[in-house]
This record gives sequence, C-alpha cells and structure tokens, in this order.
Amino acid sequence: MSLLLDNQFIELPPDKAINTKLFLDAVSHIPSFFDCLGSNVFSVIKSDINGNIMKIKAVYLKDPAKYVSLQDIVEAEREAHAAEWPKVGATLALMWLKRGLRFIQILLQSLADGERDENNPNLIRVNVTKAYEQALKKYHGWIVQKIFHVALLAAPYKSNFLKSLSKGEEVKEEDCLINVRQFLINYTATVDAIYEMYTNLNAELDYTV
Amino acid sequence: MSLLLDNQFIELPPDKAINTKLFLDAVSHIPSFFDCLGSNVFSVIKSDINGNIMKIKAVYLKDPAKYVSLQDIVEAEREAHAAEWPKVGATLALMWLKRGLRFIQILLQSLADGERDENNPNLIRVNVTKAYEQALKKYHGWIVQKIFHVALLAAPYKSNFLKSLSKGEEVKEEDCLINVRQFLINYTATVDAIYEMYTNLNAELDYTV
Ligand SMILES: CCCCCCCCCCCCC/C=C/[C@@H](O)[C@H](CO[C@@H]1O[C@H](CO)[C@H](O)[C@H](OS(=O)(=O)O)[C@H]1O)NC(=O)CCCCCCCCCCC
Ligand SMILES: CCCCCCCCCCCCC/C=C/[C@@H](O)[C@H](CO[C@@H]1O[C@H](CO)[C@H](O)[C@H](OS(=O)(=O)O)[C@H]1O)NC(=O)CCCCCCCCCCC
Repeated sequence: MSLLLDNQFIELPPDKAINTKLFLDAVSHIPSFFDCLGSNVFSVIKSDINGNIMKIKAVYLKDPAKYVSLQDIVEAEREAHAAEWPKVGATLALMWLKRGLRFIQILLQSLADGERDENNPNLIRVNVTKAYEQALKKYHGWIVQKIFHVALLAAPYKSNFLKSLSKGEEVKEEDCLINVRQFLINYTATVDAIYEMYTNLNAELDYTV
Repeated sequence: MSLLLDNQFIELPPDKAINTKLFLDAVSHIPSFFDCLGSNVFSVIKSDINGNIMKIKAVYLKDPAKYVSLQDIVEAEREAHAAEWPKVGATLALMWLKRGLRFIQILLQSLADGERDENNPNLIRVNVTKAYEQALKKYHGWIVQKIFHVALLAAPYKSNFLKSLSKGEEVKEEDCLINVRQFLINYTATVDAIYEMYTNLNAELDYTV
C-alpha cells in the first residue's frame, strides 16, 4: 500500500549496532524512491545509490558470519586497507550512501512538518533544497551544485510525489504524511547511528566531487 | 604511449559485420576516455557507457558461438522479445552506446580538423558543443540539455585534454592530432556501420530522456 511502510527499517537494539543483513534488505528498496520523483533525470542518482548498496552487499556476502554489523565491515576494512582507508571499499560506499539516506530523511521530515512555500504550496522545491543544503551541498563542487539547481526544475508536484509514495493510490495528503512520520522513526534512528559510527571511528571525509 | 593508439579498432571486413568479441575488447577502453575530461562530473557518463558495454557483454557471454557479430545479437533479440524490441536488452544498450561513441568521434574529428574558437583557442567548448548537438541533443529533454550546458563549464583546456589522451606525456599538439586522425579511421567506420545496421533493421528509437 505504501512504498515506505511496506519496507520499514527495524528498531535499533540498545547498543545501536546495525545488523548488516537487515539493513541491506531495508535499504534495497530505497533506489525506487527516486522513481517517485517522476523524471529520468534522477535515474543517475538512483544508479549511484544502487552502486553503493551493491558494493556493501558484495563485501558482506564474502563472509556474512564475520560482518554481522555494519561496524564490523568498517573496522575490518580499517585493518585491511590502512593506507587508503576510509576512502576505500564498503567504508566509502556507506559514507556516500548515508548522505543520500540523510537527504531523503530531511526531505520527508520537512514535508511531514508541513514546511512549504506559501506561494506555491504544491511545489516541493523548498523541502528538496533544505535537504540538499543539509545533507549534500558541502560535498559538491560548484558545478555539481549548479547542476542540482537545474535538476530541481524536474522535481515533481507535491501531490504527485505523495501519490507515488503511496504506489499510485489516491490517498489524502494527511494520510500519506501519517505513513511518512511512522516510517521516519526507525529510519532516522538508523541514519543517525551510521553518522555516529563514522564520527566515532573517525571515518568521515569531506572532499568534494 | 597514446590512449587511442594502444587500443585501436580493427578494420571492418567488406560486409561490414562487426565482430562482437573484438568490438567489446576495443570499446572496453572507451570509458577511460571520460577520465581525460579531468572532472568527476563526467564519472556519471562514464558509468552510463560502462553499463551499456556490460549489458552487451553479458548477452554475448551467454552464447559466444551464436553471437559472433553485433548484428547476430540484435536480430536474436528481435525474435526473442518481439513486443518490447528494440527498447530492450543489448539492442537498447548498443543504441545508446553508439550515440556516446558518435559524440566522441565528432569531438575528436572536430579537434583534428582544427576547428576552434579563435578568441579562446585553448578551449574545447565549440568542439564539445558540436559533438553534443549532432550526436545527443535530440535525445535529451530540455532539463538534460540545460545540465549539459552547465557540465560544459567543467570541460578541460585543449592542452590538458590532449595531454591526457597521450597518457600524461608532453607531446606536441600536432603529434597528438596525428594519432587522433589515425585512430579515427577504423573507429569512424565502425560507428558508421552500427548506425547503418540500426537503420537497416529499423531498430532506432528517438524518445528523449
Ligand atoms: C550529456 C549531458 C550531461 C552531462 C553530464 C552531467 C553530469 C551530471 C553529474 C551530476 C552528479 C550526479 C550525482 C552523483 C554524484 C556522485 O558523484 C557523488 C559521489 O559519488 C561517490 O563517489 C565515490 C568516489 O568519490 C564513489 O565512487 C562512490 O561509489 S562507491 O560505491 O563505489 O564507493 C560514489 O557513490 N554522489 C552523491 O553526491 C550522492 C547523491 C545522492 C542523492 C542526491 C539526491 C539529490 C536529488 C536532487 C533532486 C533535485
Ligand atoms: C545532486 C545533484 C545532481 C542532481 C541530479 C543530476 C542529474 C544529471 C543527469 C544528467 C544526465 C547524465 C547523462 C546520462 C544520460 C542517460 O540518461 C542517457 C540514457 O541512458 C540510457 O537509458 C536507457 C533507458 O532509456 C538505458 O537505461 C540505457 O542503459 S542500458 O545499457 O541498460 O540499456 C542507458 O544508457 N544516456 C546518454 O544520454 C548517453 C550519454 C553519452 C555521453 C555524453 C557525453 C556528454 C559529454 C558532456 C561534456 C560536457
């Protein structure tokens, strides 16, 4: 019924360890989120994120028993690739993936909070821009930032976007936003936990592309 | 010594059949061409083209004896997927790949012919724009066209571009262009033959992305 509620993230355990298998299952539905934006301009972003997920999955599948949590992977790579780490392997893929996940989180939260352009209440540009500025802008050079501003023109109307999130069903905006808020609980906790892990392990980089 | 001359395309036989294996070998070096543009803005295009090549290769490897020429693949897919063809499989991948190859061909030809902006002789924008207009523009909607114009700002200086084509060696511009002209002979013939095949088989589409 809802793209989001059908594929919820699970509640984190008290130690905030993220189970790799369950994370990969939940996150595998995220690339289709970009289809909800309704323009194939975004297929490029979809492939980038999909690439991140495949890279993490490939490492996990080499030794599922060893890589039970995401932290197990990042720590193992720190050992194995001391010279290049953290710009390497699944550590790099998850570094970028978490930014895409944060982008989606802030976008959805902003919509759920009713933030809007009063002059254009059916546009989501203010919400997309907020998400971009907080999650991604600082990692993009000026040309990619300019490309973002052009791509923003392809962003869908809010009503169409919420309809796609509901898999094409006509639902009332408020009902859809109830689903979004529900989805955001465990999702936000998971994304926060990944960011915390990168800070704790000193695994974050701030180069721009 | 030269990215291009190290990986030349072979001369076509009289019937212009393109040997799949030799084509895939030669074309596998093309994605690194986009590294010569010197900005990671172009890595997105590199992955798109790489995806095309991987898709064709995957089909070929299923039955190398059956798919000796590219035309064998396209014809087999026409049989196997009558309903969706030609927007399917390796037929679709090659349809887009040939446009990227044509883009590169026209860009290199324009440089080899000495076409330039007299006010900015070390810029390649006029050459890149010519290649884009002839090979790709009509398949891009207005937003992607606008993105092209922004991405053009990331195009390298001619001197740097020619240097990367020579794998970082300092060569005289004229020496590099001699290599380019040599490379273009079989390359252009191959690209032309693919276009001809798409026309003959009625396999060309003109939808925009
Ligand atoms: C023909 C004409 C066209 C000309 C050329 C046009 C070129 C357009 C280029 C625009 C950029 C597209 C977005 C992709 C950007 C990506 O470059 C970055 C970094 O990407 C990372 O790079 C690493 C190496 O540094 C590894 O390869 C990572 O890969 S690894 O797995 O191998 O480790 C990879 O994800 N990802 C990002 O910035 C992530 C983006 C996430 C989501 C963004 C949502 C925005 C939504 C916007 C809505 C309005
Ligand atoms: C976070 C901020 C960023 C926000 C978002 C930014 C988004 C930017 C999007 C820009 C477009 C990038 C270029 C890629 C375009 C691609 O969309 C197209 C069609 O791509 C094809 O599509 C098919 C389905 O229709 C199949 O999937 C093909 O795949 S299949 O193999 O599966 O069948 C696939 O290649 N390829 C193209 O147009 C080909 C482009 C070739 C080369 C172009 C050279 C240009 C050089 C320019 C120099 C100045």
